[in-house]
Amino acid sequence: MTALAVDMNQMGVAAKAAARRLAGSDTATRNGALEAIARGLEAGVAEILSANEQDIAGARSSGMDEHVIDRMILNKDRVQSMADACRTIAALPDPVREVLEDRTLPNGLELQRVRVPLGVLGVIYESRPNVTIDISALCLKSGNGVILRGGKEAFNTNAVLAQIARTAIESVGLPANCIQFVESTDRALVGEMLKMDRYIDLLIPRGSAELVRFVGENATMPAVTGGVGVCHTYIDAAADLDKALRIVLNAKVERPTVCNAMDTLLVHSSVAGKFLPELAKEFGVSGVEMRADSRAMAALKGIAQGQRVVPARSDDFGTEFLALIAAVKVVDTMDEAMDHIAEYGSGHSEAIITEDEAAAEQFLAEVDAAAVFANTSTYFNDGGQFGLGAEVAISTSKLHARGPMGLREIMTYKWVVRGDGQVRE
Amino acid sequence: MTALAVDMNQMGVAAKAAARRLAGSDTATRNGALEAIARGLEAGVAEILSANEQDIAGARSSGMDEHVIDRMILNKDRVQSMADACRTIAALPDPVREVLEDRTLPNGLELQRVRVPLGVLGVIYESRPNVTIDISALCLKSGNGVILRGGKEAFNTNAVLAQIARTAIESVGLPANCIQFVESTDRALVGEMLKMDRYIDLLIPRGSAELVRFVGENATMPAVTGGVGVCHTYIDAAADLDKALRIVLNAKVERPTVCNAMDTLLVHSSVAGKFLPELAKEFGVSGVEMRADSRAMAALKGIAQGQRVVPARSDDFGTEFLALIAAVKVVDTMDEAMDHIAEYGSGHSEAIITEDEAAAEQFLAEVDAAAVFANTSTYFNDGGQFGLGAEVAISTSKLHARGPMGLREIMTYKWVVRGDGQVRE
Repeated sequence: MTALAVDMNQMGVAAKAAARRLAGSDTATRNGALEAIARGLEAGVAEILSANEQDIAGARSSGMDEHVIDRMILNKDRVQSMADACRTIAALPDPVREVLEDRTLPNGLELQRVRVPLGVLGVIYESRPNVTIDISALCLKSGNGVILRGGKEAFNTNAVLAQIARTAIESVGLPANCIQFVESTDRALVGEMLKMDRYIDLLIPRGSAELVRFVGENATMPAVTGGVGVCHTYIDAAADLDKALRIVLNAKVERPTVCNAMDTLLVHSSVAGKFLPELAKEFGVSGVEMRADSRAMAALKGIAQGQRVVPARSDDFGTEFLALIAAVKVVDTMDEAMDHIAEYGSGHSEAIITEDEAAAEQFLAEVDAAAVFANTSTYFNDGGQFGLGAEVAISTSKLHARGPMGLREIMTYKWVVRGDGQVRE
Repeated sequence: MTALAVDMNQMGVAAKAAARRLAGSDTATRNGALEAIARGLEAGVAEILSANEQDIAGARSSGMDEHVIDRMILNKDRVQSMADACRTIAALPDPVREVLEDRTLPNGLELQRVRVPLGVLGVIYESRPNVTIDISALCLKSGNGVILRGGKEAFNTNAVLAQIARTAIESVGLPANCIQFVESTDRALVGEMLKMDRYIDLLIPRGSAELVRFVGENATMPAVTGGVGVCHTYIDAAADLDKALRIVLNAKVERPTVCNAMDTLLVHSSVAGKFLPELAKEFGVSGVEMRADSRAMAALKGIAQGQRVVPARSDDFGTEFLALIAAVKVVDTMDEAMDHIAEYGSGHSEAIITEDEAAAEQFLAEVDAAAVFANTSTYFNDGGQFGLGAEVAISTSKLHARGPMGLREIMTYKWVVRGDGQVRE
């Protein structure tokens, strides 16, 4: 075995020690650190952009896909957005040591349930360098230490951003090791990180479905399950078809590469004949390919030639496309739609469009997903939209956190009991 | 491969279907089911006790330890306690569909966070047959289906209890398969159960540390980590030694076989010379063996011959004794005590005894455990004591639930969004 470039174990020990001090720090110090990072970013724009140019040049020369490169590119505005994000997070109420329950037991014991940091988070992410700052800021605010492992394509940018954050937090008297960045692109270090359950309390994978799956299967510590959204929108018999059209277009076209975009459209047979041709026309304008089951194909027969409409294969249902593609299926009842969702959905975001309030309420109650929507777009499933301030991930797990994960969701609680000599008989 | 006696997959499918109906049922129906179980137990006492006698006879003839047999024994009073527990749980507020957050977003969307059942729980337990009823009752109340796998030593008793529960819930119109009992003692079925992540949302092991570890390492679905409590009590320099004596005795002697019993006593050097000899006398009366480090041995020198005091081996620290044994160590500072707890504790229950309020607050803030105590006994870490109504387990995980797990802790939430055609730009 050859020696690794970085001693991950040592990083773990340092993270635990720093996190313990961070957890005990006061609100003003942690908010001061966030402000210091914001200023550090503003002062360091030239250095950041120069490191970023180096990464972009490297990515281009290695023949990387232009849309991946696009996600990596920073400019003055994007750096300013990172600084602004730090200030936004600083302005949120302090969640550390928030008292969630407080009561005096009959024997006089004072019982409290208090929100506390998890300890140390590990984050394995790809391409987008703003993750370095966004997650660092959320961890600082919530009192968690963090070990960051960014993608190799943005290594120089991430290293500069992490160094700016470390310098900033040290300037307010907190240990720099509250934030650590793995200073190597050696892939073996990811494997090491997944074994560090002694030091890392929660692992967050941010990137492709493949990365999320790999982390989930190999991490020895709890890991966030998420990112994969096979999202359905069901157009009920009682739908307002104008609203339906607007919502489906929003859920599919506005940002097709995100996890909350619509993948499969389910349409009640009584409205399919009217709705699907209208939708096909709009989808045609936006360049969306429809993969239609046989009944949807029949409804689209007249116009199928002009638009991108192809027969669905069975594996199109249950696929997260992350592209301008939608699977389309005609159903005869809402139950059939809900059964389809139960079988093919990933528990992320599911929507119904209907003016029948009873049907909407039944769908919202019975469909089992992180977020369920009536008469609106699955694209709203987002920490910012839900008012959580920011998000580290969207969880499709049912344990701990479900849906957008903000500050509270990277924290835990403990029971604090104050007595005066009480014993239990 | 030989065929297994029970088709676990079929049980999983049935559990999911039943749980979906249970989740949609109303408060009165679920509480009615609990009352029906209570009546079924009262009416079935003779049948229950006869099955129990069969189990006890089998256990005795197989040479089982008498204290394990003791845990299995039922009598009229113990059956009545199970019926009472059902009625107590029925009287608790309904947690299903409880609205945890409710707000209208600036765009008019109505956003709610709603408490919902996890789905299906799997429970693998040993010896105590009351678990069959207690967990079934908590699952019913919380809208979760459950698959029960009890120990082979109490198989007949558990089978009768589960049948009574199934008949009862069917009598109020709920599917009997909300509660299923694995009707075989084949150990291979436990392995099957651990692979059923498609059907079981959370696995709860109730029994030995070995069982908990085995489940944690082999389950494909989330499993409760808990049960193992290496609990410390630290006697500070500023402790009231009378209180300290009373609390330490309670934490060690009252019920030494439970996870919240004290394992290691840490004593500040300035009070060790006075406190330890007094404690040794009391421990002598109660039959507690002290395993003392060299400084504690020195403090106990004069009386060491008369009492059960032996030198500690290094592995006594970090051991959960579950017996009348305590490791004892002298420390020079509270920091040294907290470092010892950080290294050897299992994150379960940790206590400080001191009249110095600042010291107490620092200990409560910095020690990382499910429950931390000042001037009282770790034996209080219990769902009933904390007012949760009942508990399925005590979790030492930091994710999802920490400490006693009651109804809320076997549930999740979902985001419900009601709109009127809103789309996201």
